[in-house]
Parts: sequence; structure tokens; C-alpha cells
Amino acid sequence: MAPLEVIGRKRDGLEHSAGEIQDLISGYVRGEIPDYQMAAWLMAVCIRGMTRAETLALTQAMVSSGEVLDLSGIEGIKVDKHSTGGVGDKVTLIAAPLAAACGVKVPKLSGRALAHTGGTLDKLESVPGLTVDLDPERFIRQVREVGIAVAAQSPKMVPADKLLYALRDVTATVPSVPLIASSVMSKKIAAGADAIVLDVKFGRGAFMPDVAAAEELASEMVLLGEGAGRRTVALVTAMDNPLGRSVGNALEVKEAMHALDGEGDSELLEVSIRVSEEMCALAGVSADVEKVLRSGAGREKFLAMIAAQGGRVEEGLPFSPVLAEVPSPRDGQVASIDALEVGLACLELGAGRVRKEDRIDPAAGIVIEAPVGAEVKRGEPLLIIHARSQELADRVAPRLLNAWRFSDREVRRPPHVLARVDKNGISKAN
Amino acid sequence: MAPLEVIGRKRDGLEHSAGEIQDLISGYVRGEIPDYQMAAWLMAVCIRGMTRAETLALTQAMVSSGEVLDLSGIEGIKVDKHSTGGVGDKVTLIAAPLAAACGVKVPKLSGRALAHTGGTLDKLESVPGLTVDLDPERFIRQVREVGIAVAAQSPKMVPADKLLYALRDVTATVPSVPLIASSVMSKKIAAGADAIVLDVKFGRGAFMPDVAAAEELASEMVLLGEGAGRRTVALVTAMDNPLGRSVGNALEVKEAMHALDGEGDSELLEVSIRVSEEMCALAGVSADVEKVLRSGAGREKFLAMIAAQGGRVEEGLPFSPVLAEVPSPRDGQVASIDALEVGLACLELGAGRVRKEDRIDPAAGIVIEAPVGAEVKRGEPLLIIHARSQELADRVAPRLLNAWRFSDREVRRPPHVLARVDKNGISKAN
Repeated sequence: MAPLEVIGRKRDGLEHSAGEIQDLISGYVRGEIPDYQMAAWLMAVCIRGMTRAETLALTQAMVSSGEVLDLSGIEGIKVDKHSTGGVGDKVTLIAAPLAAACGVKVPKLSGRALAHTGGTLDKLESVPGLTVDLDPERFIRQVREVGIAVAAQSPKMVPADKLLYALRDVTATVPSVPLIASSVMSKKIAAGADAIVLDVKFGRGAFMPDVAAAEELASEMVLLGEGAGRRTVALVTAMDNPLGRSVGNALEVKEAMHALDGEGDSELLEVSIRVSEEMCALAGVSADVEKVLRSGAGREKFLAMIAAQGGRVEEGLPFSPVLAEVPSPRDGQVASIDALEVGLACLELGAGRVRKEDRIDPAAGIVIEAPVGAEVKRGEPLLIIHARSQELADRVAPRLLNAWRFSDREVRRPPHVLARVDKNGISKAN
Repeated sequence: MAPLEVIGRKRDGLEHSAGEIQDLISGYVRGEIPDYQMAAWLMAVCIRGMTRAETLALTQAMVSSGEVLDLSGIEGIKVDKHSTGGVGDKVTLIAAPLAAACGVKVPKLSGRALAHTGGTLDKLESVPGLTVDLDPERFIRQVREVGIAVAAQSPKMVPADKLLYALRDVTATVPSVPLIASSVMSKKIAAGADAIVLDVKFGRGAFMPDVAAAEELASEMVLLGEGAGRRTVALVTAMDNPLGRSVGNALEVKEAMHALDGEGDSELLEVSIRVSEEMCALAGVSADVEKVLRSGAGREKFLAMIAAQGGRVEEGLPFSPVLAEVPSPRDGQVASIDALEVGLACLELGAGRVRKEDRIDPAAGIVIEAPVGAEVKRGEPLLIIHARSQELADRVAPRLLNAWRFSDREVRRPPHVLARVDKNGISKAN
């Protein structure tokens, strides 16, 4: 069928065959279908939606547009982990080494910082010497020997996603559950793991606005994973407030190490343990993750992984020349901290990228001194800005201050994990 | 508002402000908005639709993208006529000279053949020497002196429509009432007449599939015309069978002259008189159109117009070297003639263009010997093919034969004019 006819079918709300979708995606990747036709189709998909069979076919078409990683050389059930993106989300850095310490094989391909959200690769690269560019052979060898590797996706994997993602970004066709789900899952499937734990975030600092949208996306992704023969479980988690106490690349690596000592923010510890438990369960590994955490084995695994990837923790992590306290303007309890505003402020500090080619300042970011629920007095620090200059710190301080909201009554921290989704459906956590 | 936000609003089913639409169209014409963004917006419009206020704003934005013809130098109420396109539709060549003979000023800008439908400009150009490229000064002088001129639209008028039309054609965004209506009406409004008679066709040989779709389009166009201060009336007419007895450029000019003698196909005569009466009514001219037809004044006006545009009828119209009869395969009454198949066969004969740059064969086409309702015996001619070679005639003959359907019972010709639409609404003709 000609591309115009295929586009016309989606315009009219009809269902595509798998072959139609395959032809469209491969034609686009080969450069035979121009951007304007693909843009029209993407908009039709945004508005008309896609059936599960169509989304599965789209995911498969994207996977088959490039290379697929063959992990059969690693024994056992390999488990991947993915977060849809948040502010202060360093769960991978804690949960993945913990799972590896429990005996799970964790071959993880990660992404870069996107908009106001951080990226695991950027965080790891704040460790001097560490590389995330591992060729397949080295990646597989490391998972076999160390139990865990975190690397960048090869440009030869899922080229369709790169093209579609760039086009969606400039055609107002980003917010579509089938397009988001197939984008994430095509990368996870191409990465070759047997099982996948997803962390689907919603709220001010996430891409999904509310818990219902996150549950819909989580359900779609779980079924796409299962449809491709991968055991898949998703947690639906809140991202209205930043996760943990730090936002910024080196700062988050430090916080992750602290958490692997069993210390620090209780919410961060809880969700990291929970994710790790899901990873163990999918791998068929029975382990007491909390006990492993307390034993220090998770921290050791993290350090072994860093060393295997060339990282030299002993040289110390980058540190900002300017630390600037932002004092509380009043007495009260911290009611909320706007994760989006914090994310945007950290972006301005250089912790993320505005343009693709921007260089990241690995040391920049903030440390939260007064988290949600904390009681503060006027003049006590709410947070500390880590910046490369006083001028930059002064510029972002008002925006950060503005992210804090106060209450005169006692504040209960809202629940973090709202739901769990597997192939049998959604179970509410509370 | 940034283009991406505007596109996102239509994606979400929200209503645009007039300013948003103006910015989008002018940004696109200036080349600041790329094709892929416009394609996404066009698809969103196709699916979400447009309110009347939006369609009016779009029409105005397209009109103001280029030059507008100033006809104030011509006295009286100027009336334009437009058909949405059909097969064998030579009504303009009959109704417009008739109206001019009645005293109506008819400044008409016309189009070229499109897909399987003919174009008035191509038909007129089959007259030796005739030009349709009249500059505004000559166009206006001719309307003043002769009462009628039929010319090509200047490329400086409505450039937005040319760009959008080309993009819609390759992005499956053609079938949208607001987009079609604004495309037609922006050109009619820029052409400067005070009043417009529209012939909105539906059926196998037209772009609108059924009478309901044609009525919707007619209503939209009438309100767009009235919204721009132009008195507008539309007739909704059937295009399942070809109109009249000939299809092809020179052949249709000959049939039009025949009709201006008061002879030939009764349906063609009736609808031409009806259109002419509507034109007179809008101009405030009270005339007995049938009487004017019988007087031969319409034919004289047509010849005067041709002469004013350099045409030399006395040299004769082009004539095909090969005439090939297609005999009836059976006895019976002609039940229907598939206008789309006839249109496509004539396109193959060279009467239209497959690609924009194709040259037309002005002599090519068909003459219908057995119209709908005619009784035929096996072996009697259904039609005569006019072709530049026997080989070409032989090639299209089966397709044409296949367009004829027969019945053993008496066939009543279906009604041709189904409805009339003005600013007060739709009145059914039957």
C-alpha cells in the first residue's frame, strides 16, 4: 500500500496492519518517506490513537530498524531497568548494583539528560575516567564478570526511534501513549535483556501529568514487553517533589553511594530497595535486598562496576567552587518542592543540556537541606546551590526559593509508589 | 504564540484565534514554518475540524497572503462562477456568456484540469490563438467592453493556497471541508467579484462522495463568501454520470456552442440556464435567460469573448486523426455511465494531465452516443473515442466500455440539481 493510503487510513481512524506499519517505518528510515508525510501520520496517531496490536507492530518495526544486542553469552536471566525520567532520580545507581550484588545479571543501556530531567549516563560520567561507551563485547564481558554494566546505546540500535523522536519534538506529536511506549520499549527490547523493571513517573517533574496517565503508559509498556517475550513489571511513582536530597550529576552519585551505605533519604532508600526486589523477583533470585544493602555488598558492586568502566573514585568527584545557601523566608513546615522548577533551575546551573551539543557541568546542582515534611525556622537553609560562579548561583536562587511551599500545619509526605503493573493488570500500592 | 504551541492546540481539539491562524499561514508563506510542521497542523485540522470562525480566519489569512484584484473600475455588480470539478462539466462556457448576454458583468478566473476532472482554461485554449493569460488591466477592460473575460489566476494571488494545496496533496490531508472551502473561497474572494455562484458536485466523478458532504461543503463556502461580504449562492449537483455528451477540451467547446444554439443534451441546457439565472439574480438583472438563449445572444457573447482573447474560431478546432466507435455488447437501456472511469480514460487519452508538466491533447476525448436512459441494440455505438492513434483508442476502449451499465427496464434519468444553498440555508430542489 502506498504511504499516502496508509496515512489516510489512520486519518480516518482505521487500524493499520503490521505490514503497513513496517513499510512506513522502514521507508522512513531509508529516507524514502519524507518528514512531512511522517509528521502527518504522527499527528494522526496522536489524535486517533493506536490499538495494542498496532503499538506492538510499531515497536517491532522500530526494533528491526537496527541492530539488536545478543546477550545469550551471559548466563541466567538478564534484567534491565528503566525510568521515564524525573528530577533527582538516581534509583538506577542504587537499585541496579544492589540487584547485581544479590546475583542478578544487569546489562543496562541508559540515556542522557533530557529537558529538565537527569540522565544516568551523565551522572556516571562525573566519575573521573569513567566511560559509558562500551562495545558489545566489552559490555557483555563486564556483565559476565562484574554482574553489571551501564553503557550508552549504540547508534546502530533502533535508528527509527532517533529519527521519530527528533521529528515528534518539532511537530507537537510528543504526548501520545503509543508513541512514548513504543519509543521506550523498542530500545529496551533491542538492548536484549530477558526482563525489564520500569519506573513510570508522574507529576510536576515528570512527562506524565497524573497517576492515571502514568498507569495507562505503564500498562501499555508492560504489554509491549510481554508481547516481545520479555517479563516486564512497572512501578508507578510520584515525581511532584525531587527524589532524595540532591539534584545534579556528581551530587547524585555521592548521594547514591551514601544510600548504598544504608543512609540518607528514606523515600529514596525505600523505592531503590523496592525496584531491586522487583529485579530479583524477575530474575528468579531469592534474596533479602535490605540485608544485602546493610552488608555493604551493593556499594562494593557499584565501585566494582565503576572501576571496570575506567572510573577512578579515589580521585574524588568534581566539586563546585561556589556553594550558596538559600535561607528560608519564614518559619513553617515544607509542604512541597516543585520538581519541575528545581529541574529547570539545575538545567540553568549547567547540570543538563538546553541544546544537544551543550556541555554539562558535572559538579553543578543543589542539595536539599529542608525536604518535604521538614520543620524550618526563618533564616535556616532550605538548600545549597552548587555553582561554577556566584553570579550564576544568585541568578537561579529566586527560582529555587520559589519552588518551596510552606504550611503551618504538620505535613505528611505523600506516598511515593502508587501502583504496580504487571501482565495481570494494575495493583494499587495503597 | 510559538508554532508548536499552536499546532498542539489543534491537536488537543481547541479553537484557534484568528491571530494564531494568521501567524501560521504567513509564517509558512515566508518559509519560516517548515513543511513538516504545517503537515502536522493540516492533519490535526483534518481530524479535529474547524469552527466557522476559524475557517473564516483561515480564508482571510490566505487571501491576504497575496494580491487581491480590484474590480472597482467595472460598473455594476460583478458575478463570478465556480465549479468544484466534474467530468464533461462545460457549464461555465454556456452559463457565463448567457449571463453576460443578459447584462451581467462576468470577470471569471478559472483553473486547470485536475486529476480526472477537466479545467475551463484548458478547454478554452483548444481554440486556436486564444490566451487565458490576461494582465489585470486587459482583464478589466475586456469585462467592461465585452461583459465577460475568463482568465488564469495570477501567481501573485493567494500564494498560500498554492503551497498548502501542494502539501495537502502529498500528506493525505485533502478531504477536509474547512480546508477545501477555504482553498476555493480564498481564490474567489481574491478574484474580486461582488457575488459568486458555486456549483458543488458530488458522486463518482466528483471530489465529494455524496449529497450530504456536498451540502456541507456548499454551506461552508456560502458562509465564507457572505462572511467576506460577497453574495454567494451554491447549487448542489450530481456527478455520477458525465455531464452532457462530450468529454475532452475541443469537444466540450463544440458542445458548449451547440448548447448556446439551444440544442443538445437537455440536462446540460437545464443546469446551464439555472446557473445563469442565479448569476442574473445576484447581479440584480431581471432577464428571461431561456429567451436570451433562443435569441442567439449567448452564442454571440461567447464568440465575442473568444475574439477578445485572441481566439480564431474560424480556423476550426483541433480534431483527432482517429475516431473509434465502441459498440454496445447487448440490447438494453443505459442505466449509468461511471463518470470517474470516463474521466480517467480521457486522462489516458491526453485530455488531462497526470503530471503538472504534461501537455494536453486538445482534440482528445469521447462523444457519448448512448447517454443514460437511451435504448440501444447490440452493436450500436455507445460512444466514439477521439484519439491521436488507433493504438491509444484500442487501449482505453475496454475501460470506457466498462463504464456503461445496462438495464432491461426503463431507466429514468436521476435529478441533476439536488439542492440550493444560500445564506438562509439549504433548500432541496426536489
